[in-house]
Amino acid sequence: MILDHEQLADAGIQGDWVMGLLDFVRYADLDSYNHVNNKVYHAWFENLRVCYLAQSGFDFTDKTAPLPVVRKASIEYIAPMFMNEDYITVVRCSKLGRTSFDLDYAVYCEGEIRAQGQTRIVMADLVAGKPVLVADDVRTLFIARDKAVV
Amino acid sequence: MILDHEQLADAGIQGDWVMGLLDFVRYADLDSYNHVNNKVYHAWFENLRVCYLAQSGFDFTDKTAPLPVVRKASIEYIAPMFMNEDYITVVRCSKLGRTSFDLDYAVYCEGEIRAQGQTRIVMADLVAGKPVLVADDVRTLFIARDKAVV
Amino acid sequence: MILDHEQLADAGIQGDWVMGLLDFVRYADLDSYNHVNNKVYHAWFENLRVCYLAQSGFDFTDKTAPLPVVRKASIEYIAPMFMNEDYITVVRCSKLGRTSFDLDYAVYCEGEIRAQGQTRIVMADLVAGKPVLVADDVRTLFIARDKAVV
Amino acid sequence: MILDHEQLADAGIQGDWVMGLLDFVRYADLDSYNHVNNKVYHAWFENLRVCYLAQSGFDFTDKTAPLPVVRKASIEYIAPMFMNEDYITVVRCSKLGRTSFDLDYAVYCEGEIRAQGQTRIVMADLVAGKPVLVADDVRTLFIARDKAVV
Repeated sequence: MILDHEQLADAGIQGDWVMGLLDFVRYADLDSYNHVNNKVYHAWFENLRVCYLAQSGFDFTDKTAPLPVVRKASIEYIAPMFMNEDYITVVRCSKLGRTSFDLDYAVYCEGEIRAQGQTRIVMADLVAGKPVLVADDVRTLFIARDKAVV
Repeated sequence: MILDHEQLADAGIQGDWVMGLLDFVRYADLDSYNHVNNKVYHAWFENLRVCYLAQSGFDFTDKTAPLPVVRKASIEYIAPMFMNEDYITVVRCSKLGRTSFDLDYAVYCEGEIRAQGQTRIVMADLVAGKPVLVADDVRTLFIARDKAVV
Repeated sequence: MILDHEQLADAGIQGDWVMGLLDFVRYADLDSYNHVNNKVYHAWFENLRVCYLAQSGFDFTDKTAPLPVVRKASIEYIAPMFMNEDYITVVRCSKLGRTSFDLDYAVYCEGEIRAQGQTRIVMADLVAGKPVLVADDVRTLFIARDKAVV
Repeated sequence: MILDHEQLADAGIQGDWVMGLLDFVRYADLDSYNHVNNKVYHAWFENLRVCYLAQSGFDFTDKTAPLPVVRKASIEYIAPMFMNEDYITVVRCSKLGRTSFDLDYAVYCEGEIRAQGQTRIVMADLVAGKPVLVADDVRTLFIARDKAVV
């Protein structure tokens, strides 16, 4: 279930997060240690990112248009997660450049952060093979809604 | 969100299904054809199966106890699925043997079946390396609740 | 490493298999039981299938051309597999229809079959939304090379 | 196929990498953009890491012993990768602390780095819930073989 900023605040999650996704740990998320595998957090952040970018006006249907491309990704693992735990992944744009921006993520579970991550996204014209400017309406939105630092 | 038989009926899903899981298609479910990859349906059924078996009294924490092991699995793909579609996976035990049972699955989306599957589960004593009888309380439950054919 | 029919025979694998892939079990293949997860065999067969179909003349680059679509898939799990085991997946076309064909698969490990599977593939014109005839050169190849039953 | 330092040098890969894995891009590695999905690089590094740590003397069979736990992971994506490309993933320990160490990774393809990553690994006693010292024989190996900075 997708959550907005107000619903996140109601769930006790502080900060400038603009979108969240409520979910629970499934069997396929586990590895041989019976906890959520490291790679799975990347999938969680990816799924949320695609929803978030679509809601922020990005159009993924025109594959000749400039596209957001992940240039760097990092995750800090704070505490393990286990089968059936309910969790909320959250996202916001924390920093805005001319042709790129940073998205911050976190996983909240029982009111605590279990993992946090960040991706550097570059707007790329894949046909021309070069970066392009972040569109003006996206810039305005990221600054106003996400409190992104310019 | 886990749904019971009544909630499935309220959602317009007929039949003897005893548990469902409401979810939506995520980016990680897609493959290079922009539709849900064939393998992903197996993950959906696996996730539901683990919830269903736990709710049916199976104990996965004691790994020396007899365990349900998948012996066969089949899926029929009826219609493709796409990004963001809401769907409900459903499950029931359709047939009960002495040491094994069959679970049926389906994926419902907009009132139609997109895929259906079946797994033959064998109760196995992995230490002794042989099949064991399905426990009596499980037999009773599968017959009464799931309308399993003996 | 891709193996042809002669190399499979040299490796002691009998039958009309026309292509194999030698690989080993990796950590990401395991689940919480420390054996290869059921879903992973589908990925192994899928990876081999795409190589096999490309080598058999199928063109996946033109996405408006008729495409092979998986209509049914089944797997029988015979014995578990574990970390670092070397295995060979094998494939052939076992049966040929007008608009569809069956591919058989197996996983060999230490000279024994650990799992075997089958997929029904339908040639589909996704633009027109209907099945199309299997191309003549493919028919000839599947009958001559794979010993497919018509 | 696992490669050692000399075989990596023969393949034209410079640096203090101590182990590599030669592989090729499979269909399951791709996403809807027809290139290797971002998450997949983490799986590649994970698979190599487990082989590398086992060869370096880590024992994963005793799950009550102190275990290497991933505390942080980062990847820089340099150039996209496509179906059937041959690549080599490489690994070494670049930095050694008292209770933790850093592993560096890279993906080489046609002589160029396509992606590079790093993980901070902490030796953890999961029963006591606290970090423990990196074992002396591992320290000696990482310094001598991997040229790890202390």
